[in-house]
Amino acid sequence: MWGGRFSRGPAEAMAEINASIDVDRRLYAEDIAASQAHAAMLAGRGIISAEDGEAIVAGLGRILAEIEAGGFRFDPALEDIHMNVEDRLRQLIGPAAGRLHTARSRNDQVATDFRLWVRNAIDRHDRQLAALQRALIDQADRHAATIMPGYTHLQAAQPVTFGHHLLAYVEMFGRDRGRFRDCRARLNECPLGAAALAGTSFPIDRGATAAALGFDRPAANSLDAVSDRDFALEFMAAAALTTIHLSRLADELVLWTTDAFRFVRLSDAFTTGSSIMPQKRNPDAAELVRAKAGRVTGALVGLLVVMKGLPLAYGKDMQEDKAPTFDVSDTLALCLAATTGMIADLEADPAAMRAATERGFITATDLADWLVRRLGLPFRQAHHVTGTVVKLAETRGCGLAELPLADLQAIEPRIDADALRALSVEAAVASRTSYGGTAPERVREQVVKARERFL
Amino acid sequence: MWGGRFSRGPAEAMAEINASIDVDRRLYAEDIAASQAHAAMLAGRGIISAEDGEAIVAGLGRILAEIEAGGFRFDPALEDIHMNVEDRLRQLIGPAAGRLHTARSRNDQVATDFRLWVRNAIDRHDRQLAALQRALIDQADRHAATIMPGYTHLQAAQPVTFGHHLLAYVEMFGRDRGRFRDCRARLNECPLGAAALAGTSFPIDRGATAAALGFDRPAANSLDAVSDRDFALEFMAAAALTTIHLSRLADELVLWTTDAFRFVRLSDAFTTGSSIMPQKRNPDAAELVRAKAGRVTGALVGLLVVMKGLPLAYGKDMQEDKAPTFDVSDTLALCLAATTGMIADLEADPAAMRAATERGFITATDLADWLVRRLGLPFRQAHHVTGTVVKLAETRGCGLAELPLADLQAIEPRIDADALRALSVEAAVASRTSYGGTAPERVREQVVKARERFL
Amino acid sequence: MWGGRFSRGPAEAMAEINASIDVDRRLYAEDIAASQAHAAMLAGRGIISAEDGEAIVAGLGRILAEIEAGGFRFDPALEDIHMNVEDRLRQLIGPAAGRLHTARSRNDQVATDFRLWVRNAIDRHDRQLAALQRALIDQADRHAATIMPGYTHLQAAQPVTFGHHLLAYVEMFGRDRGRFRDCRARLNECPLGAAALAGTSFPIDRGATAAALGFDRPAANSLDAVSDRDFALEFMAAAALTTIHLSRLADELVLWTTDAFRFVRLSDAFTTGSSIMPQKRNPDAAELVRAKAGRVTGALVGLLVVMKGLPLAYGKDMQEDKAPTFDVSDTLALCLAATTGMIADLEADPAAMRAATERGFITATDLADWLVRRLGLPFRQAHHVTGTVVKLAETRGCGLAELPLADLQAIEPRIDADALRALSVEAAVASRTSYGGTAPERVREQVVKARERFL
Amino acid sequence: MWGGRFSRGPAEAMAEINASIDVDRRLYAEDIAASQAHAAMLAGRGIISAEDGEAIVAGLGRILAEIEAGGFRFDPALEDIHMNVEDRLRQLIGPAAGRLHTARSRNDQVATDFRLWVRNAIDRHDRQLAALQRALIDQADRHAATIMPGYTHLQAAQPVTFGHHLLAYVEMFGRDRGRFRDCRARLNECPLGAAALAGTSFPIDRGATAAALGFDRPAANSLDAVSDRDFALEFMAAAALTTIHLSRLADELVLWTTDAFRFVRLSDAFTTGSSIMPQKRNPDAAELVRAKAGRVTGALVGLLVVMKGLPLAYGKDMQEDKAPTFDVSDTLALCLAATTGMIADLEADPAAMRAATERGFITATDLADWLVRRLGLPFRQAHHVTGTVVKLAETRGCGLAELPLADLQAIEPRIDADALRALSVEAAVASRTSYGGTAPERVREQVVKARERFL
Repeated sequence: MWGGRFSRGPAEAMAEINASIDVDRRLYAEDIAASQAHAAMLAGRGIISAEDGEAIVAGLGRILAEIEAGGFRFDPALEDIHMNVEDRLRQLIGPAAGRLHTARSRNDQVATDFRLWVRNAIDRHDRQLAALQRALIDQADRHAATIMPGYTHLQAAQPVTFGHHLLAYVEMFGRDRGRFRDCRARLNECPLGAAALAGTSFPIDRGATAAALGFDRPAANSLDAVSDRDFALEFMAAAALTTIHLSRLADELVLWTTDAFRFVRLSDAFTTGSSIMPQKRNPDAAELVRAKAGRVTGALVGLLVVMKGLPLAYGKDMQEDKAPTFDVSDTLALCLAATTGMIADLEADPAAMRAATERGFITATDLADWLVRRLGLPFRQAHHVTGTVVKLAETRGCGLAELPLADLQAIEPRIDADALRALSVEAAVASRTSYGGTAPERVREQVVKARERFL
Repeated sequence: MWGGRFSRGPAEAMAEINASIDVDRRLYAEDIAASQAHAAMLAGRGIISAEDGEAIVAGLGRILAEIEAGGFRFDPALEDIHMNVEDRLRQLIGPAAGRLHTARSRNDQVATDFRLWVRNAIDRHDRQLAALQRALIDQADRHAATIMPGYTHLQAAQPVTFGHHLLAYVEMFGRDRGRFRDCRARLNECPLGAAALAGTSFPIDRGATAAALGFDRPAANSLDAVSDRDFALEFMAAAALTTIHLSRLADELVLWTTDAFRFVRLSDAFTTGSSIMPQKRNPDAAELVRAKAGRVTGALVGLLVVMKGLPLAYGKDMQEDKAPTFDVSDTLALCLAATTGMIADLEADPAAMRAATERGFITATDLADWLVRRLGLPFRQAHHVTGTVVKLAETRGCGLAELPLADLQAIEPRIDADALRALSVEAAVASRTSYGGTAPERVREQVVKARERFL
Repeated sequence: MWGGRFSRGPAEAMAEINASIDVDRRLYAEDIAASQAHAAMLAGRGIISAEDGEAIVAGLGRILAEIEAGGFRFDPALEDIHMNVEDRLRQLIGPAAGRLHTARSRNDQVATDFRLWVRNAIDRHDRQLAALQRALIDQADRHAATIMPGYTHLQAAQPVTFGHHLLAYVEMFGRDRGRFRDCRARLNECPLGAAALAGTSFPIDRGATAAALGFDRPAANSLDAVSDRDFALEFMAAAALTTIHLSRLADELVLWTTDAFRFVRLSDAFTTGSSIMPQKRNPDAAELVRAKAGRVTGALVGLLVVMKGLPLAYGKDMQEDKAPTFDVSDTLALCLAATTGMIADLEADPAAMRAATERGFITATDLADWLVRRLGLPFRQAHHVTGTVVKLAETRGCGLAELPLADLQAIEPRIDADALRALSVEAAVASRTSYGGTAPERVREQVVKARERFL
Repeated sequence: MWGGRFSRGPAEAMAEINASIDVDRRLYAEDIAASQAHAAMLAGRGIISAEDGEAIVAGLGRILAEIEAGGFRFDPALEDIHMNVEDRLRQLIGPAAGRLHTARSRNDQVATDFRLWVRNAIDRHDRQLAALQRALIDQADRHAATIMPGYTHLQAAQPVTFGHHLLAYVEMFGRDRGRFRDCRARLNECPLGAAALAGTSFPIDRGATAAALGFDRPAANSLDAVSDRDFALEFMAAAALTTIHLSRLADELVLWTTDAFRFVRLSDAFTTGSSIMPQKRNPDAAELVRAKAGRVTGALVGLLVVMKGLPLAYGKDMQEDKAPTFDVSDTLALCLAATTGMIADLEADPAAMRAATERGFITATDLADWLVRRLGLPFRQAHHVTGTVVKLAETRGCGLAELPLADLQAIEPRIDADALRALSVEAAVASRTSYGGTAPERVREQVVKARERFL
């Protein structure tokens, strides 16, 4: 490939560190599509003959079929996917294969292939995220009025509905889809024709190859086109944020399936046992999803480190771009599939959730709000009165609603039976009717809107 | 503030770890604006009296003036900016101050303030990035035809123009602006009214506060609104990528100012000397810009770690969001200012750049292309012939253009004088007229387009 | 300082990005100590006069006093701590101050100061870690026999004692101390005398300055001495691992204080309330400790990125070393203080812990072990039998020990009353007498050993 | 394995996310060794019969042979290496295989296997680091007096020798070995016998298994033993720092092989060409080594994120420990092999190095030192005088040694011919005789010491 000037072959360590075929073989379909578009353009512009162009396109088509049938032998000595394909093309169509590399370089070739791959990955993850949103929305619909404790600091704060809680994740995954969508739009410029770094003297038509491959336009600067890996970094950053969201949901599933909470039961299909403790039902899938946020964050960091301080244009350092990107996409795909399965199968336990709202004086805020609304107390003063009531209930070892009215009135004489009604969790939930609030009617409204916005 | 139920004050270590006023005092303007919008809405909806509403808005205005005049005393015992402001309001207007916190919580308050702050930071960085693009475009315009070696692997590859090289960075910073813009659009939903996590039973108008603060709409889910820090993470991810770009340019400035390269001279204003070596002119600003990509990447990692696996809704962990975000914005602002200054002041040395193109057989590709175009050789064969020519020149210790025609013809008989002309760097540069290529006419075209697209 | 060759002062952005005095002023004591050692050595070797040497040492002593009294004015125009001190020295003792910088450079000076600072920080954190271990061991002693569920996957696995659980952290913090100790030993080589990078032609005595400053030896290579920041990175890596351990303990504190667990109660001194929900007792300190693992990890990443790919010797990039190192040390100190306070104050609730062991068939392994020991079943078969028993108990909604013997015998006829005794949590805990196991006698043994090893 | 209580098999996504056999099969040798030690101990203590013990040990030996011969079929349905081995053991020796898992759990088993694996990896990397140090020391020996520019800020600072420069890396890799050694000592405690988390009621001998496997002692706390992954994190942190050092050396190799520097020539064995530019000799191996610091840093971050905030004891999250650890070790091994090869093969170009010292007034410090030593000027004043001299030489476009004496004396009358002699690079290098300095005699001394310390 470039031996003319070299008198000695690579050392073993060199061959091993340099070869990328084990990683970049995954680009085969994109590489062939890009080469076909390039060959067709070269023929269309008369840079190569129509005959050669057709032979190349047909030969590449045959190679694609060979690879997909599993019959292609990838040769590490040929270093990467590009040389493996081109070498096979030479076997199939002879010296005309050598004309394919006219007016291009591996630098623009790999940048094009890789962008196409990331674009496909984005499309896949968008569909997966939509499926996860659907599972969440369906559960939210079912549990629009199922009352559970809402937590801050993992301390019971105010009652919410389980449907409302799940819709919070629908919002997060909706933003994730937005980030992937923006990344897709930004990456959709075609590097082909940038050649090694400077463009080419052949009269190519960059608009034609860009259009043939579904790009919005050719990249405007050839140096940038071959040395830009923003698209991989932005893809990984979007994936990292998605896995952070997944890790939050996974952590909640781990919590909710403990004996202490028992809010939900995961299906057997997403639970494992123990090799030593026969009673265990471990939420392994949830734990693994939670953990994999680390893997994706690590991959993002890795490529940021690689790119830091690299002079233009292409440097071999950039070959370290594909392994982490592929791993991020595989990891994300797996996490999304597992999470969608867990959510779809999940059985909530409304009784356990409701019981948990009995602990922790969860409607104290409602008493404070009542004091503001009915007695006209400034909120800060109402908060203080309620704190005293909570302290009394804690001393007595009872709930707020179980305190005798007389005792409440000893703290604030104007408290009456109406206030006690505000202390029921059902009343509390129903009262929070502000836009985006947890009242069942609001949650149902948001379920409908979410279906429209996201599915 | 919440003492009613507590019998003992915080430990010293607790006070220190818990207080955020040293960090979040920077939110003062946003906090006051959001409180004013909230108070006006409360009064508008009759939740508080018009009189109280006016007193609150006026009092807050006075506090803003006090802070900006430097006369405000921030009290660590009051823990954060919100309590500092509210406490001062009480001093100014009395118990009516206590009505401000009706139908909100610190959870939605801080989420609102912080979003407003990040939005302002994005607007600032967008202006700074445009200024940097302007400096680059101006230099690119000046040097649209200044020839330098284009590098891959830091080895001379093909000649390009300095203007073309600089425009590669204009593209990068253009994408960075796009990422910030997308982040801005996504964050522009108002959390106010989510209250602690569940919404509120007061008949608030979330659309009104959202509009008053320039948000596009209220956030759709109250749990998400108080526990979402995507906007900070996305902001930091965009900043990290920007600083990676800055680090690449900075690395090139460091290289270009070495004695070995001498392509550019930085102004005295961006150079330092040595306390021991009197001859030194160190590119300190460039080195610091390069280094600060580490700081920003680290901050991004830090917040990703914080958010990983956090159950909903608000947790105190999230208080660790502001320090890194502020630091990222400050760091980015400084790096952009320093880089813009370095680029604007920079003096290129076209002679040194031109001289460097004499090394390294930089037009070898042009010979290969000539063999393809004129003799119809497949590119792979042309590449091999050229490799043999390069090896000959290397053995002779001369440039390609200095080889006798006869020696070239001994390698490939059909090589003629026309081929030798292709070996001049000027011809090589002029020939690369593909879209986005390095030919001066293309570079000038892109300079014009870049002004339209970005300035 | 280095103006001789410069015709123009620094730009504002340059001054701001370049100045480090706001950060490195914290090195004042180390800077002065190192300068005093250097001056004494210079005088001792006759490189400067004894008189000058004495004047310098005395002048530096006075500056130290000024700084510690708060009367020293740090001037950003003097850029860093070194120039601030030297400039003041000149005011105090005149031109002789200029002799201090003989045979050294800021490069070896700052490397020395910074190592001394990190060494002191390590000593501080070692004391803090020992204090935390003491608090844990004291609680472990108290609760050597307090039974709680041991969890894997956050599912009840087997009963353990609370003391045993706390001792696990004593081991972790013991390893952390070991890492800091190893870091200290490795950093304890003195850079002074490496000068700018090449050593010096003055007849200095590097052994003397090394000894005077408590270093084990002078660094062996001058280029390495000025460009090595391993000590900061190793310090941060040790700190990151420590904060990971702290985050695990903090997460457990957050869990254990939920209404669902209620295993422990944090003191008021380490708990906060809510501005809106009067009933809340939030474990803020624990949440902040958990979060700060992110900050420290981020700082470590930041400096790794800075150092990646830097050519020798000193580069200005390295100025980005101190801010994150200082922040890591401050953060770690705060987290250790807060955690020690929380553990020392913590009140366990043995009844709640014991009650939790009733859930989740926690002694199932003990039945399996009984089947192995008494009936000679291979473990895998015993595990399967026990799984069937658990399923039965689950169907019946009762605990294992409440199943009628007849029903057990229907599954495995040889099960007898002795097996039922093995199902009590007390018996289960007492039986685990293997070294390092959870039997109270073992735990008490480890408490004694831990005091010997660590305190 | 744990099916007794489960009525439905795992979902496809669950099977895929849960299976670790593709990763942990690399633990086969360690797993078998640990199982053999465990079985021998069980038999030795009479917990299983001698006959069963022998059958198990022999059967495991046969499985090891099968795996190493390539004839073993790993079954993903059996999830991990432990179950694959145990299942095969059952085929080979029947139900007695089920006795192997007595008094242990996968939790202590995998912790033991993995520690053994990391210990072996450390031993391997120690040998590799020594080989790299040998290659560096040999080159340093050869070039103890080869003069090159020493750089700070990549600006020529003072002349040094190439040998001295290379020895700086010998120090770095020496510290790296120290860190691996410390990690090895700290990890060398045996988890076996911790069982699931609580220890066991079987009368096992943990000292025996620890000794049989070469551990220093059994781990002191069973909960810690199964939930500690410090050893992997510390291993990765040590590896990350090593790759940072490798990245610095690699960056220098990239620089030194540019046309602008040409200080060294890499062998063909570690250089590649270009598919489009026939003249290229790209330092691919150096670039890849530089890049891989990113991969290792990313892996470290990944596992830190995984471990952050995990409650005790084992959680499935920890299964994410092995893939990054294996990848780090493989990556490090490859980087060390490639770097050792590059250094061993490298040909320095002393003439090019010497020529580079003519640029940049590299001996200015020597003039300043002369002014201090001979004329008794305070260093700061001498620095100023020299700055003026440099400015003059720069204006004249000549080197310092080429300035007429008269012009020097116009600046400082007492400058004489002796001063001019100090300006030669040879004199400058020879003069730096301080310990660890660059004088050839010092470098040769350090070469000898380095062989003793490290080889």
